[in-house]
Amino acid sequence: MNAELIAVGTEMLLGQIVNTNAAYLARTLAHLGIGSRYQQVVGDNQERLDGAISVAEQRSDTIILMGGLGPTPDDLTKQTLAAHLGRELVTDAAHHEKLVEMARRKQQPLTPNNLVQAMLPAGATPLTNHNGLAVGAFMAANNHHYILLPGPPREFKMMVDKELVPLLAGQQHETLASETMHFFGLGESALVTEIGDIIAEQGNPTVAPYIGNYEVELRLTARAVDADQAQALIKPMRSNILRRIGQYYYGSGDESLAAHVVAALAAAHATITAAESLTAGAFQAALGDVPGASKVLNGGFVTYAPGAKEQLVNVPGSVIDQHGVVSAATAKAMATGAQHALGADVGVGLTGVAGPEQLEGHPAGTVWIGLAVGTQVSATEFHFQGSRNDVRGRAVKTALLMVLQALQK
Amino acid sequence: MNAELIAVGTEMLLGQIVNTNAAYLARTLAHLGIGSRYQQVVGDNQERLDGAISVAEQRSDTIILMGGLGPTPDDLTKQTLAAHLGRELVTDAAHHEKLVEMARRKQQPLTPNNLVQAMLPAGATPLTNHNGLAVGAFMAANNHHYILLPGPPREFKMMVDKELVPLLAGQQHETLASETMHFFGLGESALVTEIGDIIAEQGNPTVAPYIGNYEVELRLTARAVDADQAQALIKPMRSNILRRIGQYYYGSGDESLAAHVVAALAAAHATITAAESLTAGAFQAALGDVPGASKVLNGGFVTYAPGAKEQLVNVPGSVIDQHGVVSAATAKAMATGAQHALGADVGVGLTGVAGPEQLEGHPAGTVWIGLAVGTQVSATEFHFQGSRNDVRGRAVKTALLMVLQALQK
Repeated sequence: MNAELIAVGTEMLLGQIVNTNAAYLARTLAHLGIGSRYQQVVGDNQERLDGAISVAEQRSDTIILMGGLGPTPDDLTKQTLAAHLGRELVTDAAHHEKLVEMARRKQQPLTPNNLVQAMLPAGATPLTNHNGLAVGAFMAANNHHYILLPGPPREFKMMVDKELVPLLAGQQHETLASETMHFFGLGESALVTEIGDIIAEQGNPTVAPYIGNYEVELRLTARAVDADQAQALIKPMRSNILRRIGQYYYGSGDESLAAHVVAALAAAHATITAAESLTAGAFQAALGDVPGASKVLNGGFVTYAPGAKEQLVNVPGSVIDQHGVVSAATAKAMATGAQHALGADVGVGLTGVAGPEQLEGHPAGTVWIGLAVGTQVSATEFHFQGSRNDVRGRAVKTALLMVLQALQK
Repeated sequence: MNAELIAVGTEMLLGQIVNTNAAYLARTLAHLGIGSRYQQVVGDNQERLDGAISVAEQRSDTIILMGGLGPTPDDLTKQTLAAHLGRELVTDAAHHEKLVEMARRKQQPLTPNNLVQAMLPAGATPLTNHNGLAVGAFMAANNHHYILLPGPPREFKMMVDKELVPLLAGQQHETLASETMHFFGLGESALVTEIGDIIAEQGNPTVAPYIGNYEVELRLTARAVDADQAQALIKPMRSNILRRIGQYYYGSGDESLAAHVVAALAAAHATITAAESLTAGAFQAALGDVPGASKVLNGGFVTYAPGAKEQLVNVPGSVIDQHGVVSAATAKAMATGAQHALGADVGVGLTGVAGPEQLEGHPAGTVWIGLAVGTQVSATEFHFQGSRNDVRGRAVKTALLMVLQALQK
């Protein structure tokens, strides 16, 4: 199977939206072991879309059309495909019922435009839209497969995950299992050095790295006749990867690093607080992103100015005078000062130079993170690269990882 | 002119990166008044790229190839285009000099692979790469134009802005002027209601709305024979838009809302602090994103638990007992408590229900923002839609806008 993705929408030709659907589906197809050599984008124009389908038929065996299934006059995708294949549009009963129900609830008339959303080319298998009204479709014709998917990302992703993937995997008589492993503190080039051979020699399972937001994700996906066998294929590769880069691993699944920290604190019945200088509240805000953060975070401090470090978390003026604000001593005093002020189990102190200017002779990117866990107090120096916001973001993630590793000891 | 954008890179066919370059260039072309009817993505494969160029030549007069100009063996774009057009590759002296200089600095040998980065098809005009080593190119052949641009977004955007735009505008004997207007608190449907006719009837200037991150951006772009005339075309449209939705406008240009707040505080020689409950430091962190924030923010508080509100910013226990934490009284007491603790000119109190659970009988999304400016104290209730992070993000942006509006009074 060799799929060509055609995104339909003038808004992409104008650059008003980014074609994230293509990336999402491409990644999904790669996990299924389905090849894809071309993508196209074309506007809401019947003649040009028809031409784009003809181009795709010359070079790909599966044509996936994304977008243009809605009720407005510029939604032309299914009409164009039906005409292209010489098929009628017929109504899918389940989606028609949804439209009737929606009209009743909103007390609005059902216009012909609206009813088109429940139609699909004759002979096609409907794909249920769990997040919307426009039905999707899968069909075989002229030695090709044709797939219709809605454009809005919420509808699109749900239909891909819940309808298309099982259908395509079933066609290949296979089941998928996958695991997303999260790593922090590992650069792209180090990743290639450490596990480049595993990525290069992958087969089944596949190993797809995604690099972003100061983290590396590895998505392992195995195909087998049943889920147990697929899991069994993942296991040795997972172990092999952890043997090489386990020190950077913080967890698997969809949870953020902050969520792992909140869960580990909650499991230990421990509370946390912080005194933040360069991050100005971003560390605590990351914890606050996690539902249930109130179990582990009662409060804390932003201590940007030296005076605020003294006033709010009792950093002795003599420590700042002697060591400067960018120092191990100040980071430790911030961590313990916050910890004591709130009677928390864990205290974090973040101080350093976000940039772009240097501070106290230290270049931008110099960061000290103090950590007080019970009566154990330490501080670590980092030199982060990048912009002001990169430095601040890396400081927050690094502090989260330090807390997680301290709790796992 | 009718441009087809071809992004070259197997990583896009695998979904490992999103094709943001296409959106950026599409938007830029739209501002220039240059049409674009198709986009393609193709992998790092000479035969398939050659075929994609042939497809594009049939339906577009300008072919823009993005990516694949680097030094690795899978970078084949310029080689493929040169072969397609039957041209030699020749060396651009300025980029060759950059490569020699780089090799000298890094004390590394100059490999033939590396030298390819300075080459372009014979007869092409070089486009300078201000952020990298691979030269771009613009050329006319066979009644078509061909443009080569590098793939890494930093290099790509700079070359588009500094090299390609002046070249294309010059070809059209025009100059561009543009202004990006920022609005907050205005939904997409309200935008359409209020200025839908302006967007629908646009000509020169163009008006492009971008919706994201709780904000609406309107980019106005005018084309004229010189910059003064282009500016003169923007002016009446700008006034017309401000007449309709001026109450949501907070500024123009590339600056964030937080940067506008920091600038307004600095201009007023005023300091700010906050006591944050549901946002847990995100409001102060947004200020900290702005270089120079230390001039206006000395410190502040995260007061998640009721006890922290009492202990850190002196919210009377009786206020919480009587009114609850999600109340005007608590929001005001947090704002003034933080203000007094740090002797700041402006104090902000953020309290509410981030969700997903309700709190004190208030549904998720209920937020009170307290604002103390000098001796003036007020509190405003909001009901934000969306996820936990949407609610927190909107609360932060709304508080920033309230501070800005208070300072502008």
